Amino acid sequence: MTLLEQTIAAIRPADPAALAAARAHQDSLTKPRGALGALEEVAVRLAGAAAVNPPPMPFPAALAIFAADHGVHTQGVSPWPREVTAQMVGNFLAGGAVANAFAAQVGASVTVVDVGVAADLEPAPGLMVSKVAYGTADMSQGPAMTVEQAVAALEAGITVARDLVGRGARCLVTGDMGIANTTASAALICAFTGRDPDVVTGRGTGADDETLARKVAVIRRALRVNGLAEGSGGSGSSEGLEGSAGQGDPDGQGGPNVSGGSDGSGGVSGEAPARSALETLAAVGGLEHAAIAGFVLGGAAARVPVILDGVIAGSAALVAAALAPGAVDHCVAGHRSAEPGHAAALDHLGLRPLVELEMRLGEGTGGLLAHPLVCAAVRVMHEVATFDSAGVTDKEA
Amino acid sequence: MTLLEQTIAAIRPADPAALAAARAHQDSLTKPRGALGALEEVAVRLAGAAAVNPPPMPFPAALAIFAADHGVHTQGVSPWPREVTAQMVGNFLAGGAVANAFAAQVGASVTVVDVGVAADLEPAPGLMVSKVAYGTADMSQGPAMTVEQAVAALEAGITVARDLVGRGARCLVTGDMGIANTTASAALICAFTGRDPDVVTGRGTGADDETLARKVAVIRRALRVNGLAEGSGGSGSSEGLEGSAGQGDPDGQGGPNVSGGSDGSGGVSGEAPARSALETLAAVGGLEHAAIAGFVLGGAAARVPVILDGVIAGSAALVAAALAPGAVDHCVAGHRSAEPGHAAALDHLGLRPLVELEMRLGEGTGGLLAHPLVCAAVRVMHEVATFDSAGVTDKEA
Repeated sequence: MTLLEQTIAAIRPADPAALAAARAHQDSLTKPRGALGALEEVAVRLAGAAAVNPPPMPFPAALAIFAADHGVHTQGVSPWPREVTAQMVGNFLAGGAVANAFAAQVGASVTVVDVGVAADLEPAPGLMVSKVAYGTADMSQGPAMTVEQAVAALEAGITVARDLVGRGARCLVTGDMGIANTTASAALICAFTGRDPDVVTGRGTGADDETLARKVAVIRRALRVNGLAEGSGGSGSSEGLEGSAGQGDPDGQGGPNVSGGSDGSGGVSGEAPARSALETLAAVGGLEHAAIAGFVLGGAAARVPVILDGVIAGSAALVAAALAPGAVDHCVAGHRSAEPGHAAALDHLGLRPLVELEMRLGEGTGGLLAHPLVCAAVRVMHEVATFDSAGVTDKEA
Repeated sequence: MTLLEQTIAAIRPADPAALAAARAHQDSLTKPRGALGALEEVAVRLAGAAAVNPPPMPFPAALAIFAADHGVHTQGVSPWPREVTAQMVGNFLAGGAVANAFAAQVGASVTVVDVGVAADLEPAPGLMVSKVAYGTADMSQGPAMTVEQAVAALEAGITVARDLVGRGARCLVTGDMGIANTTASAALICAFTGRDPDVVTGRGTGADDETLARKVAVIRRALRVNGLAEGSGGSGSSEGLEGSAGQGDPDGQGGPNVSGGSDGSGGVSGEAPARSALETLAAVGGLEHAAIAGFVLGGAAARVPVILDGVIAGSAALVAAALAPGAVDHCVAGHRSAEPGHAAALDHLGLRPLVELEMRLGEGTGGLLAHPLVCAAVRVMHEVATFDSAGVTDKEA
């Protein structure tokens, strides 16, 4: 078996007995039932994922920032020059980015992984080079990656997750850097949820109206060229999509369909043409999206919770869920970003975000912010007294 | 001058120069403008409050849990017996409550202050006894407190804030414990915002439909009895309120009106009968509400930020804002609780909550959860590189 196949085979969904034990435990603690709102479900969820109640404290956390470039950048989908990807990698390694400040705040380590930056980076402490290509190809002209490249990036992500867990991480946080990567994210979200580019495409790091309109058109073209659009797809738009299913499909069903890609649970929408998750990822994803999907699978296989950052992570998690539906049980949505596609992705995954502050930075910043909340939720299960033990009268007993 | 008057006199609103410097600083950092969403405003706000950019790191934090009982409990407004207030104080002191777990998570100290528990508590480390009364009187029959009691509780809160800052706290977090205290909170919110009890009254820690209906009726009666209701007040209800302004007013304008109570900026709504903030507090507040209002004033006077917890803190902050409008500039809304009145209070104060997870526990839990977010926001201002210093291309330069 390949590393990807082994990892998928190792993933278990939430354990029902641990979920039930965690719910009962929550209700015995010295607080009104349900008084911790959505945090109670986080603790229960992590118990199910770990198959034990109380779940292990998700500390320390490790952030991995997967960096890559995008061929579609040449279509003018971002106001930022492509060089900023490599420049920001330098900033992460020098400790000067927001992700570094947030990681310091929560005691998380920072690892930067080059899976596809369009430049050769100087070796540096904290930088792992797992470069699959010097950026993707332009998805609006054909597939962004070959399936082999997508698998290589997925396996790079799995390896990073394994390494970090091996070095003691008890929580993984996804991070990304890649100028133009909200374009790939929106395309993936369209492909996996069946929504229309008009609905899920946002301004990323600051696109103006003209750039936004171009971005929507480019995503629409990329979906059509790669055979991922369809006649009745999405809401609010029908321009030019009719009859395009399968058109431009470069290699039919030739790629490896590792598992679950078309089984309807988290896979390609029933309304979209049946394509394997790997082919979809290769067609319109980015190398960092593939790596993050692998990182999620690697964390899930190790039963270590993964806090998802923003829209890049959300779209990558759709890939992971299509490959291994049980992986979602190991994920926590750290935040909801300002990108409209992010809500669509979280909705499809059935995840509720913990922080909603209109952030739109990426790098893992939203995931890091959520880490203390996740720790607090789990800490309650370890430290809070029960009504009986504390001698507090329980109105519901 | 009394301690209350001195404290109010020492409060300065946000410093405009520091606000401007902080906004310019945000825009120079290596992230797209505005990419940190609402967190950017938190950092700017704290710079204004501290009158320096970057603002000091709000660490370590100190939580003060103000505990008191409520005469209105006898009206059946809560499903919990009154003894639970004292029992939970014991739980806090033993380290077994959710507030303790959350405080440990964020490195905050915990101080429990008895300002009005209806029992004599055993001395214990971490317990300050500043008892003003053995609980309030029943607000539905007349004023809950005398103005002198309200001032004593306010000054107890000021003293706690001063002590904690003197011992090194660089952020204060409000906490509360008092069975039936969401009833007093809703009444204060009605009085200060002009909204109707139907709109702002919630289920607290678990009231059923019958208890909720009784709670609304009791609050309505308390406002009328204390001369705080008025003919056209609020939305959606007009039963029995007409012509009641001034009726039942026990002592006219006899109480000390320290400052700002009727000046329209954060004070009693223009539509409600003109009453001083102190009289309103005394009429329908709780001793812990008074103490928390003082705690906010004390923090503001010391230019140390105060993270407000839930609806009890929100209603107490309305009192503080009425006494000293500049105090609000020193507050951060930690979260928004499930209580409907909390949103009304935050709206009136112009504060945006950082965490929205349908929590409804009190104790300071929502404020503590927000503390790492506030620290992260400020840390950005200390540690993140500028475009120039990091050599990153700025699209907007």
